[in-house]
Formats: sequence, C-alpha cells, structure tokens
Amino acid sequence: MKSEVRLLAAFLFAGLWTGEKSFAEESAPLSEESETCLGCHAALNPGIVADWKKSLHARITPGEAVKKDRLERRISVEKVPDDLANVVVGCAECHNLNPERHRDTFEHADSKVHVVVTPSDCATCHSAEASQYDQNLMSHAHVNLRKNPVYHGLVDSVNGVQSFDDMKTSLQRPDAETHADSCFYCHGTAIEVKGTKVRETSLGEMAFPILSGWPNQGVGRLNPDGSMGACTACHTRHRFSIEMARKPFTCSECHTGPDVPAYKVYAVSKHGNIFSSVGDEWSFNAVPWVIGRDFTGPTCATCHVSLIITEDGEAVAERTHRMNDRLPWRIFGLIYAHPHPTSADTTVIRNKAGLALPTELTGEPVTEFLIDAKAQGNRRTAMQNVCLACHSRGWVDGQFARFDNTIKTTNQMTLAATRILITAWEKGAAKGLAQNESIFDEAIEKKWVEQWLFFANSTRFASAMFGADYGVFANGRWYLSKNIQEMADWLRFKLEKVRDETKE
Amino acid sequence: MKSEVRLLAAFLFAGLWTGEKSFAEESAPLSEESETCLGCHAALNPGIVADWKKSLHARITPGEAVKKDRLERRISVEKVPDDLANVVVGCAECHNLNPERHRDTFEHADSKVHVVVTPSDCATCHSAEASQYDQNLMSHAHVNLRKNPVYHGLVDSVNGVQSFDDMKTSLQRPDAETHADSCFYCHGTAIEVKGTKVRETSLGEMAFPILSGWPNQGVGRLNPDGSMGACTACHTRHRFSIEMARKPFTCSECHTGPDVPAYKVYAVSKHGNIFSSVGDEWSFNAVPWVIGRDFTGPTCATCHVSLIITEDGEAVAERTHRMNDRLPWRIFGLIYAHPHPTSADTTVIRNKAGLALPTELTGEPVTEFLIDAKAQGNRRTAMQNVCLACHSRGWVDGQFARFDNTIKTTNQMTLAATRILITAWEKGAAKGLAQNESIFDEAIEKKWVEQWLFFANSTRFASAMFGADYGVFANGRWYLSKNIQEMADWLRFKLEKVRDETKE
Amino acid sequence: MKSEVRLLAAFLFAGLWTGEKSFAEESAPLSEESETCLGCHAALNPGIVADWKKSLHARITPGEAVKKDRLERRISVEKVPDDLANVVVGCAECHNLNPERHRDTFEHADSKVHVVVTPSDCATCHSAEASQYDQNLMSHAHVNLRKNPVYHGLVDSVNGVQSFDDMKTSLQRPDAETHADSCFYCHGTAIEVKGTKVRETSLGEMAFPILSGWPNQGVGRLNPDGSMGACTACHTRHRFSIEMARKPFTCSECHTGPDVPAYKVYAVSKHGNIFSSVGDEWSFNAVPWVIGRDFTGPTCATCHVSLIITEDGEAVAERTHRMNDRLPWRIFGLIYAHPHPTSADTTVIRNKAGLALPTELTGEPVTEFLIDAKAQGNRRTAMQNVCLACHSRGWVDGQFARFDNTIKTTNQMTLAATRILITAWEKGAAKGLAQNESIFDEAIEKKWVEQWLFFANSTRFASAMFGADYGVFANGRWYLSKNIQEMADWLRFKLEKVRDETKE
Repeated sequence: MKSEVRLLAAFLFAGLWTGEKSFAEESAPLSEESETCLGCHAALNPGIVADWKKSLHARITPGEAVKKDRLERRISVEKVPDDLANVVVGCAECHNLNPERHRDTFEHADSKVHVVVTPSDCATCHSAEASQYDQNLMSHAHVNLRKNPVYHGLVDSVNGVQSFDDMKTSLQRPDAETHADSCFYCHGTAIEVKGTKVRETSLGEMAFPILSGWPNQGVGRLNPDGSMGACTACHTRHRFSIEMARKPFTCSECHTGPDVPAYKVYAVSKHGNIFSSVGDEWSFNAVPWVIGRDFTGPTCATCHVSLIITEDGEAVAERTHRMNDRLPWRIFGLIYAHPHPTSADTTVIRNKAGLALPTELTGEPVTEFLIDAKAQGNRRTAMQNVCLACHSRGWVDGQFARFDNTIKTTNQMTLAATRILITAWEKGAAKGLAQNESIFDEAIEKKWVEQWLFFANSTRFASAMFGADYGVFANGRWYLSKNIQEMADWLRFKLEKVRDETKE
Repeated sequence: MKSEVRLLAAFLFAGLWTGEKSFAEESAPLSEESETCLGCHAALNPGIVADWKKSLHARITPGEAVKKDRLERRISVEKVPDDLANVVVGCAECHNLNPERHRDTFEHADSKVHVVVTPSDCATCHSAEASQYDQNLMSHAHVNLRKNPVYHGLVDSVNGVQSFDDMKTSLQRPDAETHADSCFYCHGTAIEVKGTKVRETSLGEMAFPILSGWPNQGVGRLNPDGSMGACTACHTRHRFSIEMARKPFTCSECHTGPDVPAYKVYAVSKHGNIFSSVGDEWSFNAVPWVIGRDFTGPTCATCHVSLIITEDGEAVAERTHRMNDRLPWRIFGLIYAHPHPTSADTTVIRNKAGLALPTELTGEPVTEFLIDAKAQGNRRTAMQNVCLACHSRGWVDGQFARFDNTIKTTNQMTLAATRILITAWEKGAAKGLAQNESIFDEAIEKKWVEQWLFFANSTRFASAMFGADYGVFANGRWYLSKNIQEMADWLRFKLEKVRDETKE
Repeated sequence: MKSEVRLLAAFLFAGLWTGEKSFAEESAPLSEESETCLGCHAALNPGIVADWKKSLHARITPGEAVKKDRLERRISVEKVPDDLANVVVGCAECHNLNPERHRDTFEHADSKVHVVVTPSDCATCHSAEASQYDQNLMSHAHVNLRKNPVYHGLVDSVNGVQSFDDMKTSLQRPDAETHADSCFYCHGTAIEVKGTKVRETSLGEMAFPILSGWPNQGVGRLNPDGSMGACTACHTRHRFSIEMARKPFTCSECHTGPDVPAYKVYAVSKHGNIFSSVGDEWSFNAVPWVIGRDFTGPTCATCHVSLIITEDGEAVAERTHRMNDRLPWRIFGLIYAHPHPTSADTTVIRNKAGLALPTELTGEPVTEFLIDAKAQGNRRTAMQNVCLACHSRGWVDGQFARFDNTIKTTNQMTLAATRILITAWEKGAAKGLAQNESIFDEAIEKKWVEQWLFFANSTRFASAMFGADYGVFANGRWYLSKNIQEMADWLRFKLEKVRDETKE
C-alpha cells in the first residue's frame, strides 16, 4: 500500500493544503518526505500545521541558520548534516530522524516515523543545549523521583487510592495512569512501546505503536530512544518558539503549585508587574536578547536561562540549559534548603542515616554530594551579573543577604516541625523510621511535609523573587508558625491520650 | 411631563452627545426611540454608551445581519421582525422589547422600558442560542440550587450567620442579600418587582421599579418575564462581544474557586500557556472561527461552545449553547462524578435513599436520570473532534483513558471519606441523615464536603485539562489523601472520647 | 579623584552611551550633572537607563510641563524651581536633590548624591500628590504596624523563629532581615545609615553609605530624610509611568494575599474580565483619563485614585493620593470592619480595654477616632459618582446595600469566633489577655486570626468588587462557617480534657 499512500498524499498536498501554492514554491524548500506528511496532516491536524508554518523551522534552513554570527545563532552545532542543510525543518526532519535508535519507529507512508521526538533528535542541530540539559536536574526529574525510595514513598502516599474499613485506612499501590496524571505529568513519564495497533484511517488500515505513558511532555521523560527529557515542555509544539519559552507562562505549567510557587511569586513581584504592564512592547524573539532594547524587566528565562547582552554587545550572561548555573541554593522539593547537588543524578546521595537525602533529617547538609562554597560563589556571581544590569551593588548585596537569612530561618522552622514529628515517633504517637513505616502516610506526617514542601518553599521563593505575600500570609511565614503550633497541639492531645490509656 | 422629557432628550442628543454629528447621519440608522435614550444617557452613563458604540449591535442592522451566509451568521432566526430590521440594535430595541411579558416594565420618557433584558428578549434574533441555553444546566442554576433540598441545605450552612453561646453554635437562616452576594451571584438571583420608587433626577421626578435580587447577571437568573438565565453573564454589557465570551477571563468569573477551578487549571495548562503567550495574535471576533488562521490553541469556548471550522470550510464542531454537548461526564458540584443528567432540571432526580442526588451516597449512579453510554460516546466524539484538529489519535486516546481513570480513582477517594463520615454518624460522633440533621453543618461534615467539592473536583479538572499542579499539590491528590487521614484521626479521637464517657 | 571621575564619565558618555548622539543634541536638554551620571551608569546599569529614556521625565522639562492646562497637568506645583525648569528630569535632578536633608547623601563623582529618592524629593514638582499621600493610611504603614503593640505582637508571632524542646515551643524575637523580607516588604522598612563602605569599582575605590532596611519600596518606608513612603511602590522605577500605576498588576504586588485579596477579586470580577479582555485597546497614559474614550471599564486606579472626566470635560472624580477618599469602610487588616479612622496615624487610637484597636474585641467601633456617618456618606457619594458613569442608580444602590449587609454579617461571623476564643481564655483552654499573654501565638488563636484576617476580609472584598468565588469557597463564607465549627469542636475536646484532668 505504501507507494499509493505516498501518491495520494502528494495529490492531496498539491490540491488541498489550505488551497495555497506549493509551500516550496513560495518560500523555503520543503523536503519531499515532509511534503508527503503535509499532504494528509495539513487536513487532518490543521492546528499543528498552522503553528509549524509560523515557526522559524518552517522559514529557514539549518544550512542558512548555521552561518549566523555566534551571538545570533540559535543552533549550536558547527555543521549540520548534509541531508538536513538545505531544506526547512519540516515534519520528517524530526520525526524520521535516527529511526534505528527509536523503539517507537514504525512504517508510515513509506517512511520510518517515530512519534516521540526527543532531546537526542533535537541535538542534531542544538547540541550544546541538549548536552547542557542532560546535566540539568530537570532532565533527571523522572529518575530522581522514581528511583529514590524516600521520594517515591511520598509519591505513593499521594497517588495511591485509600479505603476505610473497620476504623482503619489502607492504601493501594497507585496505578500507572494516576502516576502519569499526577507527579509524572511534570516530572515526565517512561514512554515504552507495548505493541502495535492497527487502526482504520481515512487512508485505510494503518499500524501504529502502542505507547505507555503517552501523551507526556514532562521535563524528565524517559524516551523510547533512551534519552531523558522533552524540549517541548518549554518550546511548545509545533512552533517551538523562543518567545514562548521566554514568557513566564511556560514555566507556570509546572512551577505554580504550593510546592514550587515560582510563577505565582513572580506574577506579584515588581518584575512580574513590569512584564504584565509593559511586556507587550518587548521583543521576545530577538537573539541575542538585548537589555534595554528588547526588554526592560526580567522574565524567568532572563535570570535563569537566556543569553543576555548589552546594547554594546557585551554578554551579561551566557545561555544555559543547565538551569541551576546561576543558583547557589536548591530551595525546594527537599526537607531543607541546601547547596545544589554536584550531580544531576541525585539517587546516588546517601546521608548518615542511609537515606537518599541531601541533608540529615535534622538539616545538616551531606556535603560530599553538594557543591562547595566556591561553586556557590560562582553561581551567585553569575546571577548577580544579571541583577546588576538594572540594580546597584548595594541593592543587590542587600537583597542576597536577606535571601540567605531566609534560607537559614526557614530551615530552622522546618527543624522545629521535624523535632515534633521525631518526638511523636519516639513516644509512639505515630509510626515512622524506627518502626520501618512510611514517614508520609499519617495525618501528623502530612502536616510535617507541608511545613517544608509548601510553607518553607513558598517563603524562600518569595524572598528570592520579592513576592511579598507568599512569604507572609499566602503559604508563607504565617503557616510556618501556625503549623508548628497545630502539630504541637496535636501531639500533646495524643500523648495525654496514650498516657491515659497506659494508666487504665 | 412625557413629551417634554422626549423633547428635552432630543435636544440634548443633538447638542451634547459627545459633540459628534447625529449618530444616524454618520453611520447606521438609529431608531427614534434609541435616540431619545441616548439624548440623556450618553451624558449620564457615558461608559455604557461608549461600549455600545463599539459593539456590532451599533454598527449593523438585523436586516443586514440576517443575510449573511450560514457559517458567518451571528443571529439564528430566519427572519427578523420588520420593526427591528432596519435600525441598529440600540437601547430601545432591547429594553423596550416585549413590554407585556416584563413585570419590570415602567413608563419612562414616553416609552415602556424594562430594566432586565433577558434571554427571551435576545431570542428575538438569537433564537437557536436561547433555546439551546434553555436546555443547558446553567440556565437552571438558580432553580437546581434553590429547589433541591440537599443542595439548599449546603447553601444555608454556608450563608447563614452563626453565633456561639453556652458552648454551642447556632445557625440563623441566611438573608436574601447574603444569598445574592454569595452562591446566587453566579447561580443567578430571582429578580422580582417589589413596588415603585419615585426618585429626583436631573429631569425632575421619575418613577422606577424596585427590584429584589438586583443587580445580578448570574447564569440561571429568574427574570421578571419568567425566563431563566442572563446572556450578559458571558456577553458582557454593552458591547455584547463574541470576543469577550471567547476569552477565558469571562469563564473565570464563576469557574475559578476551589469547587470549580476550571480557569486556574486552564491558565497553567499548555493550552492556557499558548493563549497567554501568543493569543494576542489571534482573531477573537471572526465568525466562523477558523483553526490555524484565527487561532492556534483553544480557549474555553473553542472546546465547549464555538463553531469551529478548518480553512477548507469543514466544520470541526458546531456552535452550541447547551454547554455540555461535548462532555460525557459531570465532574463537579456533586458528591461523585457521573454521566450528565438527561434533563437540565435536576430537581426531579431521586436516588434510592430519596435524596435529590444523581448518585447514592456511596457513589452508584442513579442511571434512569442520567445519559447512557451511547450518549456519552457521542459527546466524547464531539469533543475529540476538536482535539484531533491538533493532536493525533494516539495522543487523544491516551488522554481520555487517563481522564476516565481519574474519574474512577477520585470517586474511590470520595467513597473512603464518605465511609468515615457514615461511621461517625453510626457511632454517634456526628449527627446526620439518621438523626434527621443537616449533613453539612458539623466540622467533620465540612471536611467531607471538601473531599469532593474541592479536592476531587480539582483533581478531575486538572486531569481533563492538564493543569498539573491542581491534580497534585494545589487542592489535588495531596489533599484527597491528607483529608482522609485527618478525618480518620479525628474520628478515632472522638470515639475514644465517647468510649471514655460511656465508661464513666 | 573627583574631577578625574567626572572627566572620565564625560568621555564615556560621549563615546559609549549606546553609541548614540549626545542625548541633549537629539532631544530634550539634559543637565551636566545627569550627563555625568549617564557617562558611567548607561554602561553599568543599562536596564535602568533604557527605562528612564522611555519615561516622560526624560522627554519633557518641568518648565514645559507646568504650562499645561489644569486637567492635563501631571505636576501640581504652580512654579518649578529655576534650576530644574529647563532640563529634563534626569538622574541628578532627583538623586542630588535636597542633599542637606538626606542622611544618605554621599560624595560621588563630584556631586552630593543620595540613594533613596523620597516623597519629599518628588514633592518638588508633585506637591499635591505628596501631601495627599502623607495623609494616606499607606504612608503610615510602617509606623502603624511597628508602634502599635497589638499589631506588633501579631508581626512577632509570624516572623519569629520557633523551636521545640521538652514538649514546648518557644519563640525567638524576629531579626531585622526577616521583618524586611516579610511584613515590612509592603509596609516599608526603616532605612538608616549605618556607616560607610569603600568598594573597588571600575573607576577605582569609592565610598558608599551602608543602609539598613535596603532595598525596599514599601508604601510606608521611613526614609533617611525623615519622610514616609515610597512613590516607586506604584510608579515603578525608572519609568515612573502613570500607565503602570493605573494597571492592576501594580496593586497586586501587595494586595493579593489572603489577608487582602483585592487583586484576585478584581481579576475574576466583571471589571477585571473587561480589563483582561479588551484593556489592550485602552489608553493608560492619557491625562486626563476620559471615560469611554480612553477606557471602558475600571482598574483599581479608576475607582480609587485617578482624575476621571467625561468626553464633555466634566470631572467625575478628582485625582487623590489619599486613597480612602472614596471609601466609607475600612474592610481589612483589623478584627472588624469599621468606618475609616480620622487620622492616618492609628497608633493614637485606644479602645475601652486600652488596646490600640478601632473597635472593642467584641466589635463595637471606637467612634471618637473614626469618621462619622456624614463623612462616610461623602466618601460613598464620591465612589458612586464613578459607578454611575456606567451603571444606573438602581444598580448602584442595590450593590451598596448588599455590601453594607456583608459588612454586618462578616462582623457577626467574626464575633462568633471571638466568643469561642474568649471562652477558651476564660476556661483556661488557652492563655490570652487576662493572663497577659500574646493573643496570637497559640493554635486556636491563629484560627481566630484567620477568621477575620483571611475569611471575613476576603468575603468583604468579594462583595465590594463582585469577585464571586472569594465570597464563597475561595476563602469566603465557606471558611467563615467551617472555622467556627472547628474552633468550637477543638474547644469542646480541650475542655473535656481539662475537666478530666480536674477530676483526677
């Protein structure tokens, strides 16, 4: 059937594709393979195709793109493969790439097509970004969650279905769909080929791979070619624009909840206010991105990712997809804030108690797995260079001193809650490590989790990015202080009860 | 005084109305009646008039509008009444319509004017939309809340003022203003004429009707002409634009809170990210609305309401104001998710326990009042047709399988909480159905309500529309799991207390 | 070193400053002093300079600005000082102003420069705004919090680090950095000169003042020249635009949290919907601001601050920086809603119990310190004039009646919670006023605080500005009613425990 499909597609392409002239005639050259794809998919999925037509991928060939000056270049290889150099980046240029590596490759319209385009595919042109991203904590978001027994215990306690019988609750192991819908939506699923399915289509029967964990665009997705991550988490399909990745809405998809309220904090910060008020005057597509000319306030990307230069052409910050290059502290996700881990694979960490945690349960950092003060200093300097483009040294120093203090005090407030919980375990009011039980499943343990995962995190984000309310009444210090009182109150009730029962 | 008012208005109109030439001279023909209105109100309420002047109502006559092609038409009658055909839709064309049906009609400047313009008035030109809306759950939002004893018990427990004396709380019946300010702000108030009031105005004494429940634009408003609903809930006065109704901010007015976080979920979804990032390039006023040309990502209206076509002119989805036409499941507002009810009037439903609920208290659906699997399939297909315009079949099937699973697991998590509550009732720790008491007024009952009304709903919206955090830490599975532990914890405390007291 | 710095700066200015012609040549005249500043700072802080170049300050001289018609004027002095009249408002025109009053003045490049520009500096041209602002509660936000023992007790209980030992929690006094990062971020810090620091710069060693509480732009900041407030809280540096101050994002910086959710309520209100949907068509820079021409829906500034006129030139509302001029009620921050205080300095208030509170603990207003019914009426009228530009009298009256009722019922719901707390104190379940202990530090007291500070406030904002969900399930009446039940539940548990212990 193959060649017929191809012929039919070519026919459809010529006649139906939005009624326009052949794409190749009017603009950049399209490969024959991509022309085949569009022959059907322009009609089947018009939204995707319209989006792609607006992309740079559809308007410039890699061969031209590679000739740009260093600062203007959006691709990082020195030379693009010959067969890709002189056609625009159409469907086939990505979905037909590296077929042998992709376990999701299938025969489709005479081509070997794969569903899941991966960082390894994108690395064909964007090699530096892909290799930086590979060292980014985010690319390990699936693995670090799935293979760390401590974190995974938290995941199971959240995602498992509970039931209640005979005055007791019980917890089922979570199913794969719930995982994919919950934590792994952002952390990334494991995409595996589970077989093949034949489906009736408008062109007759066709076979497609059955994929588990699909759809997903989580940042640490395990891909069918063995790579980790999804560039589309931020560079939204099928425009893949730098504009969208630079706007804060992209980050908001995963960085909004009480555990990591970065977007909410930004939105109410002075920086967010500037973006919301006058950001529509800015240029989000310019490469390089020029302070003062292209924008007059930062978005997430400005401080954490982008290549930023002055109007004189001086680089204020280099582009990085290892997104903690400008971050001395890791302020969320773990029980205590601590210096960033040296390796993006955090499953190798062990504290003195043998847990895969970067600090002890009482807060002391496990220094051999974490960056040292010098590395922290380098990262702080990299971030401050961005700050100094708009702020004086005194302003910046004052801000960082305040933030360092907040790291200290929020860790202390977490320690107070931890001591209450440890006391509860010791005195039999709850069952934890000593009893070889989950440390996340009881009511008091869940209150403890909120102390660090919601309230300490929120307070730290507010401090880092000046989102005032989030450090006070919006999941900030108000809750840090209230939660300790409620935990202590509960423990006293409970222990009096235990004491009463002992007396009887 | 009548004719003097009219003369004076005409005089004011000619001279004062923003200093421009008479409206009729420069643009579309305005009726004499509307000219009279504007004579005073252009100066009295300049904001409304400016808004209306930007509306299509002010720029095209129904007679012209009715001649458009089927896909381009914004009005659905085949023929407009002769007296309305050749003037633009000004003040009088709506406020003076159907005076005999309107109990709020009053004599004003020689005309019979009514305050509250209703879906029955709008139906003069927009008949299909009005009759679809009449079958929409939303038009019954007032009635379904007010006349269902179960729901109304919830309303009273929320809106009533409480007091505390002698270690006991007591609950007053809520007053009408509180109802109007609270639940019925969105559900719609009952607008009733309570008399007439004479007021001194700039043109001397004038009489106006006294309306209870006014102002209000709730979706299920009971109108003085006997109709239900308010088109202005979404088509904001006095521009009545399709643009505003298509933007998600409109929906956010009532679909933001923890009970129905649709807007919040959308805002952090990939779809919302696309809208926020590049939506300013889209055309929100185009009819029909063309995928790829007018927009490249969905808003609420795209998936739930709008007529969507491809650039080839093929309809992907038909316009509907029966807003669950593309929804197989009803995922919020009730204790368990269930197939949509067959009738928009849900007060007729009775479960086996005799309650006006679409499921038993333990979750089994009351099938005779709900759509069957085939109807669910049709609605699913209608929605999936929209999805497929941008996504492959495999993507869409994967997404829906995940959503169906989330419906199942969130119902199970609600069942666990319900079993705790039933146990509390059975063992005397709280008073509920068996004691013929409210099931919403005690602390433990309110925690149970949050299980379904906040946490299960939120998790389902997150699953339906990929708003990751809202299915995990932002009122999602984290709270579903924590709430069960806290309810069980409370119950064990309480029952030990009961036991202690029994022993004494 | 001085003159060398100046020479070098002049050299840099000519050559480097964005490679353009001298600013003075191409546009408005720049002072020699500001030219010196830009010589270095255009390269050092390009973001600030770019922002300033877009400001009106950089494009018009005060001498020209003062000649505008009354309604168009943005400055309020009758005559500007001669030395400022004929140059644009550059760096030096603000940072070198009033050197003798500023304790933060230091020698820098041959000039006496100060870091912190204050309302007293701005008053040089904007005298009316500065003196109105001085009578605004906001300018007293620091003092009213710091010097009121009741409020300060709340601040300490939120900001202090807690620890847990021997079954007891203890509270440290908060450090200055935490205060600055928390409550005083919005309320404003006290900026004090703590010494001088010599720093190596690109131009050699230079001395700078060491400032405590810096950076900060809180509305009630205590400045080194003795003034209170920060114009930059709303008029963002260094564009100082009226556009940003008029957009709601500015207000969101401090009015978002659960204690004062004004922005959130606005965002989901019909008004916010209009702004979000069509606000990009409006003119935010026009002075005066014309209803219907420049905008067709209100932002925060429209109702509370701005000079608003009709197209006929009639003033609907006068500009005011005493931001409660149109507000009869003070609806947040205190235990009960009450008429606004007569003086912006609220530390002078004493209720019958001797507490610095505008009501008794049981809600009765301390009338001698509050505006009377007539003053309330004037403020209500001032606000209603704005409403009436777009709404009929019946609509507006209905809305205000509903709001007044909500003030009454939310106060009643706070009273119920207060009675529970008073009972707890009386019966020894908690320690409060009678025991001379904090009324904010125990778990039950923190629940009481949430009753008024979060839930009653939120309900009132929702009522005032029609943000439906915030009056019901989003921190509204649902929580008001649930919290009372939980407090009563806790108290009954606790007292049974006390009783049991007494029996033993």
